[in-house]
Amino acid sequence: MEKVLIILGCPESPSQTPLALYTAHKLTKMGFDVTVASTPSAAKLLEVSDSEEFYVQKKVDLEKCLESLEEKEYDLLVGFVHKDAAVSYFVTFYHILNTKSIAIVFEKDPELLEKFLNDLKENTDATLISARAYHNPTPLRVKIDKAFKELED
Amino acid sequence: MEKVLIILGCPESPSQTPLALYTAHKLTKMGFDVTVASTPSAAKLLEVSDSEEFYVQKKVDLEKCLESLEEKEYDLLVGFVHKDAAVSYFVTFYHILNTKSIAIVFEKDPELLEKFLNDLKENTDATLISARAYHNPTPLRVKIDKAFKELED
Repeated sequence: MEKVLIILGCPESPSQTPLALYTAHKLTKMGFDVTVASTPSAAKLLEVSDSEEFYVQKKVDLEKCLESLEEKEYDLLVGFVHKDAAVSYFVTFYHILNTKSIAIVFEKDPELLEKFLNDLKENTDATLISARAYHNPTPLRVKIDKAFKELED
Repeated sequence: MEKVLIILGCPESPSQTPLALYTAHKLTKMGFDVTVASTPSAAKLLEVSDSEEFYVQKKVDLEKCLESLEEKEYDLLVGFVHKDAAVSYFVTFYHILNTKSIAIVFEKDPELLEKFLNDLKENTDATLISARAYHNPTPLRVKIDKAFKELED
């Protein structure tokens, strides 16, 4: 079974936790073994949302995960990026894992969004999914579905 | 089976959707028949979070719900309040339903939080649960657990 690591930074946006639950569940249904690595605040929101662990079973602390991470430990990296710190985390995980990677980039300020995308393009060859999303998760959900459909093809 | 209506306004805070899922599931496990009424943006975040409807089964549009709402149609009203508009919705639902009511009030700005609480105290006799919450859902979750424990006693 292929392994995927989803990474979550600070949950500033109301869309992050809902989209993380959606993505984790979708990848699980596609047959991946899914682990979510998150900051303590993102972890608390996941736990409260999914109190029975119906959508996410394997959860680890982002920093602890990074400490012991090894090349090719996961077959796919999926990162949620909507802050500068999340860009840095994604680039770091990307270079250690050296595996297929997808960054889901969302930010309501178009200049910041552009900056995050440029930083990711300069520093990685990851597939980039992006939208000027904040409240409304639908544009990103549609793009996530499309990117994952391509994984299956 | 006693019926509870949970109302959700605009999901500005990253805590609202996670806490709504938690609260709905907790009340369901306590034996309530739970309906969640929400604005379109709050509804989309619920749908993306809980794509298999594991935590919330009955969902209605907030405005449509209000149009046909009748006194005592629900035995318990639970409202999430973190904007002026949500205060108005809660007060309106409270006076139409005329039933036991709990407002869960959260806002990071202490002056705004105080204002929302004062408005609710002046206009309702609802039980008020509050915290200066934004990212971290734990203080509210603990208070929600306590308030629901008192419902059972």
